[in-house]
Amino acid sequence: AMDGAPPPTSPAGLSAYVAVSQLLGLTLLATTGAWLGRYRGGVAWHSPLQFNAHPLCMVLGMVFLQGDALLVYRVFRHEAKRSTKALHALLHGLALLIALVGIIAVFESHRAEGIPNMYSLHSWCGMVTFVLYLLQWLLGCGFFLFPGASFSLRGRYKPQHIFFGIALFILSITSCLLGITEMLLFKISDSYSHFVPEGILANTLGVLLVAFGLVVAYVLTRDEWKRPPLAEELALSMDFKTLTEGESPGGGS
Amino acid sequence: AMDGAPPPTSPAGLSAYVAVSQLLGLTLLATTGAWLGRYRGGVAWHSPLQFNAHPLCMVLGMVFLQGDALLVYRVFRHEAKRSTKALHALLHGLALLIALVGIIAVFESHRAEGIPNMYSLHSWCGMVTFVLYLLQWLLGCGFFLFPGASFSLRGRYKPQHIFFGIALFILSITSCLLGITEMLLFKISDSYSHFVPEGILANTLGVLLVAFGLVVAYVLTRDEWKRPPLAEELALSMDFKTLTEGESPGGGS
Repeated sequence: AMDGAPPPTSPAGLSAYVAVSQLLGLTLLATTGAWLGRYRGGVAWHSPLQFNAHPLCMVLGMVFLQGDALLVYRVFRHEAKRSTKALHALLHGLALLIALVGIIAVFESHRAEGIPNMYSLHSWCGMVTFVLYLLQWLLGCGFFLFPGASFSLRGRYKPQHIFFGIALFILSITSCLLGITEMLLFKISDSYSHFVPEGILANTLGVLLVAFGLVVAYVLTRDEWKRPPLAEELALSMDFKTLTEGESPGGGS
Repeated sequence: AMDGAPPPTSPAGLSAYVAVSQLLGLTLLATTGAWLGRYRGGVAWHSPLQFNAHPLCMVLGMVFLQGDALLVYRVFRHEAKRSTKALHALLHGLALLIALVGIIAVFESHRAEGIPNMYSLHSWCGMVTFVLYLLQWLLGCGFFLFPGASFSLRGRYKPQHIFFGIALFILSITSCLLGITEMLLFKISDSYSHFVPEGILANTLGVLLVAFGLVVAYVLTRDEWKRPPLAEELALSMDFKTLTEGESPGGGS
């Protein structure tokens, strides 16, 4: 990808996969809303329905927004790197904020109902994922957004940032599936095995979460769909590499 | 990796990560055995303990053996491609066989106890994963092991085979986590929230499964740890590319 000018348009396959990912994303938000609205009484704060804010916020923040944040380098292929990077950080920041609201919702509703916290595999996986996701965001801002880190340091950290970014996205989806299973066995343990509509709907939400994860991961891992470096980025990185090898790039991207 | 002779030894980092993966793999088998043996009465066929063969077989086949099958191209870097490929197919075949025994165990124990099948998210995810894993194995044998497929066809299928191979490995681990959550909520729903030892042990098994998946996925996705093509493979593929572009390589890889 280093040996040519960037193509003027996005690859056709990429656009189709991104479109499918967004359709799946919206469908899984709608399915979460339908489950909570139709079968669980809806969502409200300061009420017995506060718990329901938890699944809604986690699916919106830790899955949909996190997934879209990962896709921005593929979607905005020909924009300035600096703007794309800012959008990537902003979407992850928003995802963290919404997830935090979702975590507060479950802790407050547990306290109101006298249910212990952090005993289940879902809570362990979910909490580890959230804390590492916050850490990854802070490290990402520190290495790539603020001017302190040298080119060589950024280059060494980047593959780790990408690996753990995809790993945390997958762990987020896994935590959601664990949460769906817990919630069904708490709420409809007697009827779940009789294929009641709520069980089918919630299982379908799980399948949609897996499908969203697969499509996003496929888009992210296609070599030929990686963002091509713009001409000026190549020139800039050449300049810095030859002139200030290992030094800080100062105020730049 | 195409521009030099293969190095004589494995990269140091790779060996360390592979060692850690095997330690984790053995630890998670031991933890599964400890859970079933210490708290669930052990494992036996034709008995009320038949169900317990299910988690044991799935962890052994769909996680440990599947993971090791994925690692063979990294571990046996300097062996003939043909032998490594045969080992890869053999380990996956063994994993499939053991998983099949595990699936028979759960269906037979459900029948004996009058429990319905295939209603839970765990069963949906697990069954989809097993069926796609079998399909992936058949496609892999058809494309890469038997002599029919052309070089260009193999080249086009290979990235898909790799992507879905890793995806199915992750889905297998996710299905195990869902199974652990289900089993705990069926068996110790009253005491799980009081942090009883069985709950902690089974949660720890879940964390070990995630750790095994992370280490294996990290080894598989490091570009610099990919198996370097041997000199004779490069020469062979060059010959075929120039002489019989798009034609079948005839009797083998």
